[in-house]
Amino acid sequence: MKSEKEVVLSSHGDGGLLTHKLLDETFLPLFDNPWLSEKSDAAVLELAGQRLAFTTDSFVVSPLVFPGGDIGKLAACGTINDLVVSGAKPLWLSAAFILQEGFALTNLSAIVRSLSLVCRDLGIPVVAGDTKVAGRGEQSLFINTSGVGLVHPDASFKATNVRSSDLVLLTGSIGDHGAAVLSARLGIPTEESPESDCMPLCFLYDILEPFFSSIKIMRDPTRGGLATTLTEIASAAGLDILIHEDRLPVQPRVKAVAGIYGVDPLYLASEGRAVLVVKAEAATHILAALQNHPLSAQSSIIGQVQEGSGRLYLKTALGGTRPLQMLAGTPLPRIC
Amino acid sequence: MKSEKEVVLSSHGDGGLLTHKLLDETFLPLFDNPWLSEKSDAAVLELAGQRLAFTTDSFVVSPLVFPGGDIGKLAACGTINDLVVSGAKPLWLSAAFILQEGFALTNLSAIVRSLSLVCRDLGIPVVAGDTKVAGRGEQSLFINTSGVGLVHPDASFKATNVRSSDLVLLTGSIGDHGAAVLSARLGIPTEESPESDCMPLCFLYDILEPFFSSIKIMRDPTRGGLATTLTEIASAAGLDILIHEDRLPVQPRVKAVAGIYGVDPLYLASEGRAVLVVKAEAATHILAALQNHPLSAQSSIIGQVQEGSGRLYLKTALGGTRPLQMLAGTPLPRIC
Repeated sequence: MKSEKEVVLSSHGDGGLLTHKLLDETFLPLFDNPWLSEKSDAAVLELAGQRLAFTTDSFVVSPLVFPGGDIGKLAACGTINDLVVSGAKPLWLSAAFILQEGFALTNLSAIVRSLSLVCRDLGIPVVAGDTKVAGRGEQSLFINTSGVGLVHPDASFKATNVRSSDLVLLTGSIGDHGAAVLSARLGIPTEESPESDCMPLCFLYDILEPFFSSIKIMRDPTRGGLATTLTEIASAAGLDILIHEDRLPVQPRVKAVAGIYGVDPLYLASEGRAVLVVKAEAATHILAALQNHPLSAQSSIIGQVQEGSGRLYLKTALGGTRPLQMLAGTPLPRIC
Repeated sequence: MKSEKEVVLSSHGDGGLLTHKLLDETFLPLFDNPWLSEKSDAAVLELAGQRLAFTTDSFVVSPLVFPGGDIGKLAACGTINDLVVSGAKPLWLSAAFILQEGFALTNLSAIVRSLSLVCRDLGIPVVAGDTKVAGRGEQSLFINTSGVGLVHPDASFKATNVRSSDLVLLTGSIGDHGAAVLSARLGIPTEESPESDCMPLCFLYDILEPFFSSIKIMRDPTRGGLATTLTEIASAAGLDILIHEDRLPVQPRVKAVAGIYGVDPLYLASEGRAVLVVKAEAATHILAALQNHPLSAQSSIIGQVQEGSGRLYLKTALGGTRPLQMLAGTPLPRIC
């Protein structure tokens, strides 16, 4: 039984420790089913001999516009990417808008346009929608997108597939989105600010399709950043993951902003990257394919899986090894 | 081009004239596809020889708890019902929560429980979820539910199927939900208040399945009430609909509350009713089947379709005939 004094805190929404606690204590016991318990990016569902992926995400990012994107682009990319990292080809999206009174219709139009352009470019139709208006509040607009995709027959991505000696690949730099939102919030001029990496990852589906049977799990490191995502994988696999600090690409502007604000890029969200755990023998082929595409040219092998008790470790640039925890306490609320 | 002075008003969310204007001007031109243009309750999508229904709805009802339900029950029923009235068997739901800081976790638990109980009773799993936290505002909790269902082979519900001489059936009383929310907002004691009709309509799927090929269209008259829903059907069909005031069941407490507050039950939302346009020759069989079930025992034939220009008319109890418009201006914002 909860104490009546316990209330929702901003950290309940950061994707880290308190988000997991809220899920484990308040939600999962009431929705006891194998799909939710898996805590994956999308549920995989059987229908008529096919496997469908189904996912949902609400977006509450503040401010609504940031260098490299806005909440509309983010809402399209976020759900599309959750399907892609599940090994699914995105088929259809829904988009539901909650508007607060007084929000300018010109601003709404610009945001709806951003969302629609991502979908139009990729040929993924928004087939269902909803708009509601709800009083006044700090935030003037929320978007929920849900998506349905078709899972590739060779794709079966799960943390429990992960084995010792598997390798960990990352498709680009880390923390760009988090640092861009932070910059916008701090009022750093756009020309000096890092730009969000927010982009749809459908190109990864095409690159990786031939290798799906060698991929153990794929995730996009959004809320909570790379460290939180890999902690979740290590914990669910019951194996340790060791990543190498000197192999993690961090853009200079992200480093600068993270330094000023005192946050760690390892915990800053990306919105256009994927992290993959793959069979060691396939890793160099997959890496070459990724590096061959301009949008994932910065891909690298950042670490490996090893026997252990489900922890994430960082081999620092100075040669030390330190354990990394899941995000605990929000350095930066409302990032997506 | 919109003027910069135009802003979101509460009436943009009432399901009536301004909602349609917002859709037509801001959303539909950017998402130009046959599914959205149809403005139906769910998109019907082809996959592997099957037809899937996909729908989304956000819930912003205020207060969060009202006689007969709460936002959790409403969020489950709303999306389940949008699938059922599309002739689909609900398969899977997603549930995404936007929480505002400071909301009591005990209240959250009660609402999540309501949502989960509806789904558990019906065996419809919530397979995907999300929680976000977003600042502070008038409303402490929003829920989005999306749903996927399997459309019955005999079901093809569209306003363009409607023909002159078709009959209009309603499965129960009107306006109960709207009047219950209104009562809660006005502080009317629960024992004197009307109770929301909020309930899942899966039982209607079972009753109506043998008659699906005789059903032209089915809708649940939520935001905007029966008058708005039937106006939409008449307009899309290009035919007139005439309904008879003396055949519309209105609960005495709904009448009383509507009278005090000066609102018309024809424009108050229902959340557990369906309105059907059916072939005349099948109507009495369908009516008998509906009346045979305790949850739709109050079903009646409320009107008929006739040649015309796409308007809705009410034959009043006094024998006059007057045109009814779509809801314009919110008598009661944030009803669902």
